[in-house]
Amino acid sequence: MHMTYTAAVAGATGYAGGELLRLLLGHPDFQIGALTAGTSAGTRLGEHQPHLAPLADRVVADTTPETLAGHDVVFLALPHGQSAAIAEALGPDTLIVDCGADYRLADAGVWEKFYGSPHAGTWPYGLPELPGARAALTGAKRVAVPGCFPTVSTLALAPAVGAGLVEPDVVVVAATGTSGAGKSLKPNLLGSEIMGNVAAYNIGGVHRHSPEIAQNLGAVAGQAVTVSFTPLLVPMPRGILATCTAKVKPGVGEEQLRDAYLKAYGDEPFVTVLPQGQLPTTAAVLGANTVQIQVAFDEAAGRAVVVGAIDNLTKGTAGGALQCANLALGLPEPAGLSTVGIAP
Amino acid sequence: MHMTYTAAVAGATGYAGGELLRLLLGHPDFQIGALTAGTSAGTRLGEHQPHLAPLADRVVADTTPETLAGHDVVFLALPHGQSAAIAEALGPDTLIVDCGADYRLADAGVWEKFYGSPHAGTWPYGLPELPGARAALTGAKRVAVPGCFPTVSTLALAPAVGAGLVEPDVVVVAATGTSGAGKSLKPNLLGSEIMGNVAAYNIGGVHRHSPEIAQNLGAVAGQAVTVSFTPLLVPMPRGILATCTAKVKPGVGEEQLRDAYLKAYGDEPFVTVLPQGQLPTTAAVLGANTVQIQVAFDEAAGRAVVVGAIDNLTKGTAGGALQCANLALGLPEPAGLSTVGIAP
Amino acid sequence: MHMTYTAAVAGATGYAGGELLRLLLGHPDFQIGALTAGTSAGTRLGEHQPHLAPLADRVVADTTPETLAGHDVVFLALPHGQSAAIAEALGPDTLIVDCGADYRLADAGVWEKFYGSPHAGTWPYGLPELPGARAALTGAKRVAVPGCFPTVSTLALAPAVGAGLVEPDVVVVAATGTSGAGKSLKPNLLGSEIMGNVAAYNIGGVHRHSPEIAQNLGAVAGQAVTVSFTPLLVPMPRGILATCTAKVKPGVGEEQLRDAYLKAYGDEPFVTVLPQGQLPTTAAVLGANTVQIQVAFDEAAGRAVVVGAIDNLTKGTAGGALQCANLALGLPEPAGLSTVGIAP
Amino acid sequence: MHMTYTAAVAGATGYAGGELLRLLLGHPDFQIGALTAGTSAGTRLGEHQPHLAPLADRVVADTTPETLAGHDVVFLALPHGQSAAIAEALGPDTLIVDCGADYRLADAGVWEKFYGSPHAGTWPYGLPELPGARAALTGAKRVAVPGCFPTVSTLALAPAVGAGLVEPDVVVVAATGTSGAGKSLKPNLLGSEIMGNVAAYNIGGVHRHSPEIAQNLGAVAGQAVTVSFTPLLVPMPRGILATCTAKVKPGVGEEQLRDAYLKAYGDEPFVTVLPQGQLPTTAAVLGANTVQIQVAFDEAAGRAVVVGAIDNLTKGTAGGALQCANLALGLPEPAGLSTVGIAP
Repeated sequence: MHMTYTAAVAGATGYAGGELLRLLLGHPDFQIGALTAGTSAGTRLGEHQPHLAPLADRVVADTTPETLAGHDVVFLALPHGQSAAIAEALGPDTLIVDCGADYRLADAGVWEKFYGSPHAGTWPYGLPELPGARAALTGAKRVAVPGCFPTVSTLALAPAVGAGLVEPDVVVVAATGTSGAGKSLKPNLLGSEIMGNVAAYNIGGVHRHSPEIAQNLGAVAGQAVTVSFTPLLVPMPRGILATCTAKVKPGVGEEQLRDAYLKAYGDEPFVTVLPQGQLPTTAAVLGANTVQIQVAFDEAAGRAVVVGAIDNLTKGTAGGALQCANLALGLPEPAGLSTVGIAP
Repeated sequence: MHMTYTAAVAGATGYAGGELLRLLLGHPDFQIGALTAGTSAGTRLGEHQPHLAPLADRVVADTTPETLAGHDVVFLALPHGQSAAIAEALGPDTLIVDCGADYRLADAGVWEKFYGSPHAGTWPYGLPELPGARAALTGAKRVAVPGCFPTVSTLALAPAVGAGLVEPDVVVVAATGTSGAGKSLKPNLLGSEIMGNVAAYNIGGVHRHSPEIAQNLGAVAGQAVTVSFTPLLVPMPRGILATCTAKVKPGVGEEQLRDAYLKAYGDEPFVTVLPQGQLPTTAAVLGANTVQIQVAFDEAAGRAVVVGAIDNLTKGTAGGALQCANLALGLPEPAGLSTVGIAP
Repeated sequence: MHMTYTAAVAGATGYAGGELLRLLLGHPDFQIGALTAGTSAGTRLGEHQPHLAPLADRVVADTTPETLAGHDVVFLALPHGQSAAIAEALGPDTLIVDCGADYRLADAGVWEKFYGSPHAGTWPYGLPELPGARAALTGAKRVAVPGCFPTVSTLALAPAVGAGLVEPDVVVVAATGTSGAGKSLKPNLLGSEIMGNVAAYNIGGVHRHSPEIAQNLGAVAGQAVTVSFTPLLVPMPRGILATCTAKVKPGVGEEQLRDAYLKAYGDEPFVTVLPQGQLPTTAAVLGANTVQIQVAFDEAAGRAVVVGAIDNLTKGTAGGALQCANLALGLPEPAGLSTVGIAP
Repeated sequence: MHMTYTAAVAGATGYAGGELLRLLLGHPDFQIGALTAGTSAGTRLGEHQPHLAPLADRVVADTTPETLAGHDVVFLALPHGQSAAIAEALGPDTLIVDCGADYRLADAGVWEKFYGSPHAGTWPYGLPELPGARAALTGAKRVAVPGCFPTVSTLALAPAVGAGLVEPDVVVVAATGTSGAGKSLKPNLLGSEIMGNVAAYNIGGVHRHSPEIAQNLGAVAGQAVTVSFTPLLVPMPRGILATCTAKVKPGVGEEQLRDAYLKAYGDEPFVTVLPQGQLPTTAAVLGANTVQIQVAFDEAAGRAVVVGAIDNLTKGTAGGALQCANLALGLPEPAGLSTVGIAP
């Protein structure tokens, strides 16, 4: 007999919700329960997610504690600020995996500065590859899924920062596909504006993922880490490529850097340190739960240069969420997740 | 009576050559003479540059000193290493504007390290917006057109570096469209590989434009400047967006930074410091000779963040070349060049 | 002394309006007067059209007869249904060039069926390359600029239809870039949905440009022409490629077809029948006012296959509008218009 | 105990080969044996297919009968003309699934006209959804996988043609992503040329898939069917959208058309006739083995308009091949194939 868990997805008509459903459809241990949304409640899912053929005729319900109740797992893919009420109503026995930001930051002051609303609290942070994280997630009933930029930036920098090979002062420039912005109807997200165009946004350290990266690296380093983070919007639907640099400490060279990465990720199923000479590409991880990493040493600049690639919707959101749900439920961590991308 | 100059273009079937011809077709003071190329000599230009309708039936000649002789101006858009022989054969009275790298670097040792061939020499560097450059280009008979990445990176950083507002240690991550790689038939440049994909390349300070940026900023700073440069290949045909950061010196804030840029570029016809709140985009400068710049101060990271956008083929190559040719010939600097982009 | 005309643009913040302004900025005989819009009145044009640097600080006015009054020419780039009131208020002496649909169709019943509103009337149809059109446009005070699909489809088929070489029953499948849909904030126009995706829309003959193509070809043929028209939305910002086929009449072959096209367009400045072996591409006409055409004969299918390419915003809208304004005002027809595209 | 079959893939470094491997990695009943190629023999697969992480360290062998021998199934993704020698050497007991063209056409004269080489023969045609095809494929030892355009065009037209609802004279215009052209290093396939560009190619009925479509529809109709086929190259890596029209016979309307499609495909696992109002998109079937179809009736033109979408590499090549292999081996037809796409 095969036990399955029931899973509800709140925010099922958006991009994160769609990716959760795509992965759940291929997961052997889940049955898909309620699909909920805001304004599109009452419509067929097929109108919003035409690629999810097996769910095309499912009708989208309202996102309420009632529609989400009665499932083993509830995945939240909602705007920030909406998770607390749902979590409270569902009670402590339901596994809640929040793809939103509400429970990611530990420092209430930082939360309020960047999000402009009261701090909801802090849940176990869903990046199993960080030191100590896997244990905290095993059997958890609440998971805060990391932001997409923090996922790749943290994993790209953690080994060097954690091993003390670089100064605690990093620069991250990360190019993202447009799905990271969700389905918001903004003029600058129209296809006509996006194609043939690259722009930076939220420059000067004001992107909400900046403090999250700093929090993660600070924990790894055991000291405060300064982060300069600039996101770029590039003309592709999916993927993030993060270029991360930091001054190396005296005497550190390429070999020590490379060793730190191989040691940190040698046993990780979803982090690949590429062979020398091969560089990460977002295309290679499209639809996969993989992080591809390459590290180099720029002797003239005295800097480590680490490049990381993920699919922002898979490892960066829904895949990461599922990986955590597997851990929380005691399932094999890689269940329902693939390291095979779709290319070209 | 309207005097016109005759111009030859070597490398007329490539992307830089095509952009030179597009601009020359709209320039009131030039007549287009010989169009030359390597393996495609003997073919119609229309086969290679179908967008240059008025030149469609012109036959491409071989690139030799003979075919290029007898023009007032010769634009070279050739692989590096080929300029010296042509320059010598044409003699000192022909204006030669070299879009290649041969004469950009002053330090022979650096040249040899990055290009692996003997140093040809140094010509006046064709970035009129740099201090002193305009004077050196006026009436010149030889011009070394800057590389595309150095054009935007240098202009994005020069005011802050030159005014001593930041440490002489900069990080540049620059996303480029694919035309920067030319028409090379490499698998990674195929449309199937490019679309939906972002990759870094030449990481760790090995890109040939790294020392050129360092040379420019060093001259501006009056001291050595350390440059960490990482190029990204993004899915669009044209454009570069450079994200440049450097630690600010104690006491420096946003206002001083902004003032330095407004002061440096207030009278420049082709550099626009955008109003606060507006960010550079490559789409806005497509086909224009403009550099768009925005500057911000990241207080938490203690860094100036400067973003610059250009069209790599226009201001980054052919437009910059024409701007220099105008100066060299005593024509109005903006002749034949536009600040109007094509969008969307 | 150089006489210039003043031109106002209504709908200046949209894509058609932006292209009108781009072309007017390069036109020697126009001075740009009022720029008007709907909800964005009161804002800087630079917020909406960052590529039009020389107009960045112009403030957008409301679209009203008052703001548009007092110009020699008024270009309308408005949703349909708004032209009549403006035209009436401006009076018969102002040249009004309407890029909208209001005055294109002669048959009121057809108009009402496809547009669902009362018929405004019929103005001279702005496709100078059609038989008789140039004369009607010369000195006109009112011009109805053709739709983008009708422009290329009509020009691609008119010679064959007009010479009676094909049956009056044509099939057109036309792939368009996204700017044809304007800046409408619809989910299916988001970059995330557009990139990597092709879709047909308005299938089954319901697109509003179907009767316009039929009207044009009917006039050329001197008999009713049946049109099957299917538009495709493809992932690029600009351009239309129309594939047009019709059964040839008995005895007709490739040579007769080709001759008809060369004869029809031999003297046209903006229509290029490509040499055999070369095919139209939208990239080759980007930003140009050119129509590229190639014609072939499919012997097995007994069909003429004609492919046409235009830039939907240039020859398909704003360039066509300017070409007509030139004719109406007695200026050289090609003034301010280019046959040089921007590529790659 | 779980029996698995061993599968070799010839042409493993190309796009079709890569997609075969992607699907085989997810198929429960196959073990991947030899991976072979031409010039890249001896290299790591990871260099060519970085998305196939589990196979990254496999070394590519030469494509020879010896390397391919000893497998239960051999998938061929080779240039045409190479299959016969391999098939002969492997003997009649190995299941050979040929993704190339060699054995698709029944008429040797047609083959020679379009391919310019001797006809190899005819194998069971791998489009299970065609009448009678499933039976012929069950237990087969040889399969000719259809071309990508014929797959979607045939399935889009077969019900209308087969039910005699339309005239045997069809027009197909099909827009394809660039992976259909393989990894050929041709200038027109460079990213710089592809992005922002649409072009038709092989116009006038000369594309090699024309006679294949005619053969398929002729078999369905029981009479010769005339096909006008024009392929378009559009800027996306994957996907085909085919727009197919034909004159309806007197008295036929939308309802009869729709009924014919629902009847033909009601039980097909991989063909979806979309609900009215929803249109096929290539994005919705990316990576899926699905054909999406919509049908409409253009009353004014008297034509049925059928739009079909597939992923050219999945249902159009590798997915179709695997579906046939499943039938040939007696496995469940949908094993290892998904109806869930990856979007956005």
